[in-house]
Amino acid sequence: MESLATSVEFQMSLLLFVALGGYLIASRINQSAVIGLILVGLLVGPSVLGWITYTDFVRALAHLGAVILLFVIGFEFNIRDIIHPRNFAIALLGVIIPWVGGWWLATGFGFDSASAIFVGTACTATSIAITANVLKELGKLQTEAAKAIIGAAVIDDVLALLALAISTDVVGGSFSYISVAIVTVKAVSFIVIAAAIGIFGVSRFLVRLDATPFVRKYPEFIFIFAMMLAFLYAMGAEAVGLSAIVGAFIAGVSFKDVELHQSRSLKEGAEYLQIIFAAIFFVSLGIIADLHAVTSEILFFLLALTLVAIVTKVIGCGVPAKLAGLCTKDSLIVGFGMAPRGEVAMIVALIGLEAGVIDQGIYVALVLMSLLTTIITPIVYRNWFYRGEYCTYDASATCSDAGK
Amino acid sequence: MESLATSVEFQMSLLLFVALGGYLIASRINQSAVIGLILVGLLVGPSVLGWITYTDFVRALAHLGAVILLFVIGFEFNIRDIIHPRNFAIALLGVIIPWVGGWWLATGFGFDSASAIFVGTACTATSIAITANVLKELGKLQTEAAKAIIGAAVIDDVLALLALAISTDVVGGSFSYISVAIVTVKAVSFIVIAAAIGIFGVSRFLVRLDATPFVRKYPEFIFIFAMMLAFLYAMGAEAVGLSAIVGAFIAGVSFKDVELHQSRSLKEGAEYLQIIFAAIFFVSLGIIADLHAVTSEILFFLLALTLVAIVTKVIGCGVPAKLAGLCTKDSLIVGFGMAPRGEVAMIVALIGLEAGVIDQGIYVALVLMSLLTTIITPIVYRNWFYRGEYCTYDASATCSDAGK
Repeated sequence: MESLATSVEFQMSLLLFVALGGYLIASRINQSAVIGLILVGLLVGPSVLGWITYTDFVRALAHLGAVILLFVIGFEFNIRDIIHPRNFAIALLGVIIPWVGGWWLATGFGFDSASAIFVGTACTATSIAITANVLKELGKLQTEAAKAIIGAAVIDDVLALLALAISTDVVGGSFSYISVAIVTVKAVSFIVIAAAIGIFGVSRFLVRLDATPFVRKYPEFIFIFAMMLAFLYAMGAEAVGLSAIVGAFIAGVSFKDVELHQSRSLKEGAEYLQIIFAAIFFVSLGIIADLHAVTSEILFFLLALTLVAIVTKVIGCGVPAKLAGLCTKDSLIVGFGMAPRGEVAMIVALIGLEAGVIDQGIYVALVLMSLLTTIITPIVYRNWFYRGEYCTYDASATCSDAGK
Repeated sequence: MESLATSVEFQMSLLLFVALGGYLIASRINQSAVIGLILVGLLVGPSVLGWITYTDFVRALAHLGAVILLFVIGFEFNIRDIIHPRNFAIALLGVIIPWVGGWWLATGFGFDSASAIFVGTACTATSIAITANVLKELGKLQTEAAKAIIGAAVIDDVLALLALAISTDVVGGSFSYISVAIVTVKAVSFIVIAAAIGIFGVSRFLVRLDATPFVRKYPEFIFIFAMMLAFLYAMGAEAVGLSAIVGAFIAGVSFKDVELHQSRSLKEGAEYLQIIFAAIFFVSLGIIADLHAVTSEILFFLLALTLVAIVTKVIGCGVPAKLAGLCTKDSLIVGFGMAPRGEVAMIVALIGLEAGVIDQGIYVALVLMSLLTTIITPIVYRNWFYRGEYCTYDASATCSDAGK
């Protein structure tokens, strides 16, 4: 028999209760729900109250939340929105410039060259979950800036993976062009094959299946199938070294044009799952960060690193966006939208720590930099770019009216 | 870093993949989805293939599934459907007769008196999850028989709790009327207070909240609130010794008449969650049972116990139903509907095993009896009482046309 305090029912009600508190905080400070949820996570986590720690249960639900969130976001996108020369340019410069910036800063702080390489690598990866959710809240997923951000973020994930593979090899003294080529081929092949199977195979199969007596009898079958595919693609992405959420996103993209008659809407169902589990995911981002680990020495490095991380993404992604024809405001939206590092930088930091390449101080700084860059984007969006706007779902929004 | 095989994404995709297989099995043998899911759970669990074991992760998701399922079922019920003299009569005889039957059988097999008391107690509790889901699949939740079953099952849970408290005290030699009275008062008070707060407090609060600018800004708030309440009530029920699912059911009943305008439908959202997690719950029932533990000696006891468990519920619940004015067919539907013991009997068995009162053989027999009674109801329903009927949602179905 389990004790009540560790029961699933207790933990779920506590997490959701805390999430409700996050909404109240967000409303109070007039910010995105994401900010309220992360702040309430910091409050109830080890940093302040210590009510909730990052247990396996919280971690599992947070994973579900991140996967389901990107699956839902995927429903809004065409494959053509991703494969666009502009997005490749944004992603490429948005990886190179932050890498150089992070490496330069760490070297300037007197860290050894292996540490500096890991700091640079941790600065490369964009985590799209936060930005995508804020754009969704604001009803701005169909704007040019949003398409550039999401498309570039998927490509960015491949490039960040390459950066990690190269860094690990260089630090370990086993760098070879062949291993880099293998990583690249695996990641790109996965994305291409998964998208092709999803769009041309699975989505057509589901439309046909929807018309069968089998689905008339068991109408929930197709929804279970779709969610299974989201997790299967997430797992596949992890298996080739990409983040799981990239796989979930591709699964969502596959279902964009699936119209069902007998079964209920896949998108609607996934959105209900997302409401519950993405809220827990955002709360968990606050729980995982322990502010007690910040000493005065690393505080200075942390602040400098966060500044460098934001500025290098704003320049590295904003400039190619501007050159590709977006207006200045949209280019800045792209730059700030690519700034959150989220869980990808945390994973890089963890790999570095476990390999003994970086020490505890750098590790904490990387984790908190990741959190800070994540918090800043929704604040900047809501207060500078989309001031006073709520969920309007204006599909025709273009650059000129985005600034109203 | 976790290995891929233990990643959340891998486990979720495997569980959902297996669930899809369960639907195919159910369709193949023309049975309720529940049967297919339990059978596929037996297949992939330790009994046959050993692909999936009952890990903390599976257990957590299964708990979520059971809670969400009963929450959704609750939406279909009025509080008046439960508090009905007929339901009290069905519940009371449906606890006494199975207790006597189980005790008598165990004594007849030569078990000591403490073991016999625990076997009797394990026979008392009805687990409503399976029956309710099958009735939901068949669109029969609004029939008189269904109302009698669900209402009686909630009362039954209180009585089974009392039986467990009494048995534990008697076996431990510390029986007192006062402790029995305390258990009763706690359980009944919880149900009455929770229902009153839910129906008169929370549901009205949510309707008012739905009209505020706050909810216009954060439309998902009310859905998170409702799910939080489901888990909070489930936890409360556990805290007073009832099963968690009784609490979730009362939370659902509270929301029956909540009409929202700005927020999306609570029932619809909970149903999407239920599709995914209840499927995992049913699969887990198959996974938890290890058929290897069945030796030839206990096989005979198991079969006799299962027969007694079913017959005593059919008589103990069917006869009062008939006396209360239901037709013979509906009375049999009530009797078989109350037969599944589900997780409640498994918990009683676990308590007995951990207290050293029953041995491993009796324990396995109780767990498997619980599973067999669970499997038999959907088979009997689909093949005898509701032959060839699928989800028609015929709210006007009465006794006479239930047999078409």
